[in-house]
Amino acid sequence: MVDATLSRIDNEMEQNLNRLFDFLKIKSISTDSEFKKDCAKAADWLVEDLKSFGVKAQKYETDGHPIVHGHLGSNKGLHVLFYGHYDVQPIDPLELWANDPFEPAIEQLPSGPVIRARGSSDDKGQLMTFVEACRAWVKQNGSLPFKVTFFFEGEEESGSPNLVPFMKKHKKEISSDIVLICDTGLFESRVPSIVTRLRGLLKEEIIITGPDKDLHSGMYGGIAVNPARILTCILSKLHDEDGAVTIPDFYDGVPELPQNILDQWLGLNFKHDQFLADVGLSTPAGEKDRSALEMLWSRPTCEINGIKAGYIGEGFKTVLPAQASAKISFRLVANQDPLKIRKKFRNMVKDLLPDDCQVFFKEHEASKASQMDISSPEFEKAREAISEEWGIEAAFIGCGGSIPIAGYFQKITGVDPMLIGFAKDDDQIHSPNEKYDLESFRKGIRSWVRVINSFSELQNV
Amino acid sequence: MVDATLSRIDNEMEQNLNRLFDFLKIKSISTDSEFKKDCAKAADWLVEDLKSFGVKAQKYETDGHPIVHGHLGSNKGLHVLFYGHYDVQPIDPLELWANDPFEPAIEQLPSGPVIRARGSSDDKGQLMTFVEACRAWVKQNGSLPFKVTFFFEGEEESGSPNLVPFMKKHKKEISSDIVLICDTGLFESRVPSIVTRLRGLLKEEIIITGPDKDLHSGMYGGIAVNPARILTCILSKLHDEDGAVTIPDFYDGVPELPQNILDQWLGLNFKHDQFLADVGLSTPAGEKDRSALEMLWSRPTCEINGIKAGYIGEGFKTVLPAQASAKISFRLVANQDPLKIRKKFRNMVKDLLPDDCQVFFKEHEASKASQMDISSPEFEKAREAISEEWGIEAAFIGCGGSIPIAGYFQKITGVDPMLIGFAKDDDQIHSPNEKYDLESFRKGIRSWVRVINSFSELQNV
Repeated sequence: MVDATLSRIDNEMEQNLNRLFDFLKIKSISTDSEFKKDCAKAADWLVEDLKSFGVKAQKYETDGHPIVHGHLGSNKGLHVLFYGHYDVQPIDPLELWANDPFEPAIEQLPSGPVIRARGSSDDKGQLMTFVEACRAWVKQNGSLPFKVTFFFEGEEESGSPNLVPFMKKHKKEISSDIVLICDTGLFESRVPSIVTRLRGLLKEEIIITGPDKDLHSGMYGGIAVNPARILTCILSKLHDEDGAVTIPDFYDGVPELPQNILDQWLGLNFKHDQFLADVGLSTPAGEKDRSALEMLWSRPTCEINGIKAGYIGEGFKTVLPAQASAKISFRLVANQDPLKIRKKFRNMVKDLLPDDCQVFFKEHEASKASQMDISSPEFEKAREAISEEWGIEAAFIGCGGSIPIAGYFQKITGVDPMLIGFAKDDDQIHSPNEKYDLESFRKGIRSWVRVINSFSELQNV
Repeated sequence: MVDATLSRIDNEMEQNLNRLFDFLKIKSISTDSEFKKDCAKAADWLVEDLKSFGVKAQKYETDGHPIVHGHLGSNKGLHVLFYGHYDVQPIDPLELWANDPFEPAIEQLPSGPVIRARGSSDDKGQLMTFVEACRAWVKQNGSLPFKVTFFFEGEEESGSPNLVPFMKKHKKEISSDIVLICDTGLFESRVPSIVTRLRGLLKEEIIITGPDKDLHSGMYGGIAVNPARILTCILSKLHDEDGAVTIPDFYDGVPELPQNILDQWLGLNFKHDQFLADVGLSTPAGEKDRSALEMLWSRPTCEINGIKAGYIGEGFKTVLPAQASAKISFRLVANQDPLKIRKKFRNMVKDLLPDDCQVFFKEHEASKASQMDISSPEFEKAREAISEEWGIEAAFIGCGGSIPIAGYFQKITGVDPMLIGFAKDDDQIHSPNEKYDLESFRKGIRSWVRVINSFSELQNV
């Protein structure tokens, strides 16, 4: 059953690609209102494409760009939901693109053929791997072995402002046994992977004020408090000599990693030297005595993302600034409580403040880390299925960043989603000249066929 | 002799003011090339005005705005040079001006009448105090008691790029026994003063780089060095707990103040509480156990004037910045060597740099402090003369800022200039609604008459 479907996919790659190219030509940039109609067009295109192989699909209007939703298969037995997004990143600076970002083309690179276009990897190409897998399965076998829900949004690149309200309102339609998300990549562009840990994120912005106006440093230097100096003194105290974060109780809820996970990660032979060399560095910073993957996937961080104080233009002004501000973010893991950390951080800043200075805090995102329960059998089933397709043992990995949609599903439907994707590190998502390897697209489709098959076995048990 | 001249000044105040108003109407903004013709016009106006009472004046073209130079009196005996500048600050934001900045008018304030116009205080009004004093003296007495050189530049507000070359080239014409500069103010708007200490200035700009591009803090946070954090750690180490600067040997060449000067300054009853309250502060920062005037006039400082790192716009980007930079300036006193301090500062920064970070230094101004030798008899003569005019014991004071022209005279002609001015703290120089008290103008003119008279006594000894 699987082999015939896999062969069909290989035989029909031209049609698969033509459909993807049609989809990629639609300029569905969600952050720019100029492209509002294009976003609607992309949603319409998806509805039509899903209907073409029997999906009961429809477009839901929101306050922003539409959401596409559709069902295929019977209401009995297993129910699998697949999430992807049809919107793409802006294209500027356009002059850095070798080709028109919305004129997709196959390009032969030394490493193999790639699909070059905005959205090819993030996320239209990845989204279509699952759609093509379902289409091929239906064509070959008449119907899917279980119910599948397609769930596509058009605002992922602009912060998904309308997604959570939609999910809450349509909780019944988006509730399922399994959630699949295709918006991640192969580990080191090579190892098929399921992301099972996502770090949380706490963003803090602090503004320290002192004098009620900028002062002349000749007039007031020395005698008047300088908020820029106070800010540097406070920021410099956020880490100790060994790179650990000094906020009280910061590491509450951060467990040591189980040995089996540590071993699995060490087995990935992550080349942290190369990882650093790729960005011009040679020495791991941060906490001592932690392996690189451990630091990236299972340890929390505190980073300064921006500082602004006084005169920062060309030349020089000997000003004593009235205020100084910084943006600081924390990557959180396991059971760290973002709100508790926010409070302790703010108290620490206030405690370090001298007379004559005030501090203001701007509130930004605060989200907990996500960790999937991989003891559910579908995780191991999926892992085996993609291992078979790629001929490499697939891994349960972490992700240093945040993928908010994962947390939304956990919170709203109570399901730990499976994050499986086929992007490579050099896909240049969010940058000019985005590409998606033809191999990622073909093996991606084939991977989903194997995953669908493995889930059907699960159902039959 | 003096009394008749002083009476003449009081009687001719209307004409004195009319001339000043004509001068103030010329839009001689030196920083803006749009006003190049206006600067030339101001120079021409000065030449004509000086000629009108017998000065052999002429305009010298430079690569920027012209310099006006003129002599009056015999080549024998004492030679006094007077410096002022005819250019003014830009006027923006124009909407904050109550009146047209180039339509001077007398305004009645509760504290007394003021001349409201751009340049009224800085420096056209102050410049004209000396010109009017000489004119009145000549009118009253036929000739000045010694040779006077008038030396006016038009680029003071734009860094005087052509002044030093001119001074070097015309060293003979600008060499004199005494140099008078009228570009300062009354101490606390009340006590006539001669500034005899000016702090020097060392400006440093450091740029710390790490990764070769901005990184995603989810991907690289923790493991990659963060230049913003390194910068804060370095900047936070520039002062110790007591506010003293920690750069090795920074205080070399900083003597303790002689008791008589300390006493004189304490006698000024400087209200540092009010000084700080005026800018919204209440607690002196900086070095412990130093009086406020001591800190402002005779102690060196290190201040952060600007910091820039990472994302500083609206909202948030969880970027790990590729670089972080800061502008830092040092006010220097007595015999501190700016070049030696620059070197020690740079070495300190380099020593604090971790692996994977580089630092670049941008070179800016480095000037020594100026200290006048007040044992020359003309300093005491002038002090007595202005004490008499204002009815208050005049003081030898310091100035926290830098007045580069003072150093130029010291370096090029070897003369310690006398900085005497009549501006008040609320004159709003460099801001909208600049004004000059009518009292400053009238008593300023009269002060110079008394100073000229006291110098003539000096000559006769």
